[in-house]
Amino acid sequence: MNLLVFAGALRKDSFNKKLAREAMRLLESKGETAKYQDLKEFDLPLYDGDNEDATGVPKDIEALGAMIKSADAIVISTPEYNGGISSVLKTVIDWLSRMDPVPIEEKPVLLLGASPGALGAVRGLWHTRVPLEAMAVFVFPEMFGLSKASEAFDEQGKLKDPKTEKRLSDLLSRFVEHARPRKE
Amino acid sequence: MNLLVFAGALRKDSFNKKLAREAMRLLESKGETAKYQDLKEFDLPLYDGDNEDATGVPKDIEALGAMIKSADAIVISTPEYNGGISSVLKTVIDWLSRMDPVPIEEKPVLLLGASPGALGAVRGLWHTRVPLEAMAVFVFPEMFGLSKASEAFDEQGKLKDPKTEKRLSDLLSRFVEHARPRKE
Amino acid sequence: MNLLVFAGALRKDSFNKKLAREAMRLLESKGETAKYQDLKEFDLPLYDGDNEDATGVPKDIEALGAMIKSADAIVISTPEYNGGISSVLKTVIDWLSRMDPVPIEEKPVLLLGASPGALGAVRGLWHTRVPLEAMAVFVFPEMFGLSKASEAFDEQGKLKDPKTEKRLSDLLSRFVEHARPRKE
Amino acid sequence: MNLLVFAGALRKDSFNKKLAREAMRLLESKGETAKYQDLKEFDLPLYDGDNEDATGVPKDIEALGAMIKSADAIVISTPEYNGGISSVLKTVIDWLSRMDPVPIEEKPVLLLGASPGALGAVRGLWHTRVPLEAMAVFVFPEMFGLSKASEAFDEQGKLKDPKTEKRLSDLLSRFVEHARPRKE
Repeated sequence: MNLLVFAGALRKDSFNKKLAREAMRLLESKGETAKYQDLKEFDLPLYDGDNEDATGVPKDIEALGAMIKSADAIVISTPEYNGGISSVLKTVIDWLSRMDPVPIEEKPVLLLGASPGALGAVRGLWHTRVPLEAMAVFVFPEMFGLSKASEAFDEQGKLKDPKTEKRLSDLLSRFVEHARPRKE
Repeated sequence: MNLLVFAGALRKDSFNKKLAREAMRLLESKGETAKYQDLKEFDLPLYDGDNEDATGVPKDIEALGAMIKSADAIVISTPEYNGGISSVLKTVIDWLSRMDPVPIEEKPVLLLGASPGALGAVRGLWHTRVPLEAMAVFVFPEMFGLSKASEAFDEQGKLKDPKTEKRLSDLLSRFVEHARPRKE
Repeated sequence: MNLLVFAGALRKDSFNKKLAREAMRLLESKGETAKYQDLKEFDLPLYDGDNEDATGVPKDIEALGAMIKSADAIVISTPEYNGGISSVLKTVIDWLSRMDPVPIEEKPVLLLGASPGALGAVRGLWHTRVPLEAMAVFVFPEMFGLSKASEAFDEQGKLKDPKTEKRLSDLLSRFVEHARPRKE
Repeated sequence: MNLLVFAGALRKDSFNKKLAREAMRLLESKGETAKYQDLKEFDLPLYDGDNEDATGVPKDIEALGAMIKSADAIVISTPEYNGGISSVLKTVIDWLSRMDPVPIEEKPVLLLGASPGALGAVRGLWHTRVPLEAMAVFVFPEMFGLSKASEAFDEQGKLKDPKTEKRLSDLLSRFVEHARPRKE
């Protein structure tokens, strides 16, 4: 199975980038194919209908849309900003929705979130579900919140706590099993 | 009373810019002072913690923050993008939250929303409340949704339907009455 | 395919009961097996942990749980009460969650909503998703809102407007196609 | 100032009843008048429009409505049931909304929540805001989540941790200051 993994943050040392890469590593250890894409490699402007009229959907959004379209399922690790969705991820969503067809429509998506605080981005994850589901994305009911993210990774970026790693690994297994394309 | 009015969209002919300006006109007709700010005049990058570390909060966000700080209350007319908050407005919110103190904290805010569809941005408005309330903003419980916005304004940008104008005007009166600073 | 259909309201002439029965009729016309259950036939007390300790989960909740467990998928037509989930449906959910295993867990669920107003229960439906998804229910991303429900049904309880009926029928087809159990 | 305090749960040993009583104690220590009402003393049926047509709003709801109406502000400590609002509290809300005028309309409300888990009912509190705000209640933006509630109270029902007590006390002070009726 072919998965795309990305984080809803731009910062180089983002906890959510680390968590996304851990998800990719665990997916590969299960024999799945997982591609990680860093959104910082893209040129992402704010959504502006005038710019869209003038020059269309940005090329980098079209590139991301093509990656999404060719993936069987998507894993997004995304921060909570002010109790809600990351503005970076919402910008990506709003641009993707201007493509026709919308590449993320009907895709299985798993949401992860890391935060330095005690709540593990849980409010942000629930806020993030809404626009995705409004776009007819199949957001997996279970989500993964990583609290105290500043202490969670070792120097190689691996999750220190084996129980946390197992919790993520088991969730990824359930998601992959559910999202696996049906044999006709 | 001193109000700031802005729209959560960038497009020049945005219905929400029209609605924001109608709100301003109605506020002024009540004897209030209302300033309208077009976000398109600002240079708004996506939120990126690395850029923040390198160069701080963008100057235009600081300018908007100063306007917010000096206002007694704020009216935001904001579109629904994909059933949720405008990514433009969320970007503004996420940058504002990096100022210290956060200028919008504890401010009274009224949310309006215009949409071309039948639901009048109502899903988007409820999704927009969440991060504002998480920042300790006093979001007025009542909100104003304008459906079928493409038919709602005349060529001068005024609301065509007197009942709709009255509905907005009455809500603005209730908001102003509630938000008015207490005399000590 | 074996579906259970019920409404999240008790009132005898509830619009949502009518909509639920229309969903059942349309499902049967597609060759599916659909059972309709009226919650009013059940004795449903408020959730009270002391009563649960004393006498366990109510028998009627266990009966509903058994129906849910034996269904391949579930269609719930549910009103919006005060911009949110029906307290009747939430009571059912809270009791069901006390069964072990939770019978609705991992079931595909489609949400419909009828309201006399213009917004077609859309706020209520989004609020209703949250506890279901928190229980690991697969709530179908698309939902169906019926506005102006007091004018929508004829004397036999059938949807008057063929376009509305087709919109519901098409959504039911997409849901059934998605929820159909995989052949091993 | 005259406050009403109640919990959104029925169970005798409910953590949220304990938290509500602690809020009452702290309010009284600040010189405010706080009345605590246990919902279990009331006879609360599920909302059913047929019963409403036959016998009107239940007497105990009318009694609660009168208490709410005579209070300057309200503090509700309410559990999270399945990631959402307590069905008990939602039932109360749905009945109250059938009174004319709606007694809770435009009242200042502070939400607290206790849970045995690590997240302190935070998802439930955000879900609880929605119907209250849809009823034009002024829900205070800040809320109070008490995690690991089974270890939080001593045998007299007092919060063991002085920091937690101070956090609650300070929030109550901010709420009272904000909600205090204006002198004309």
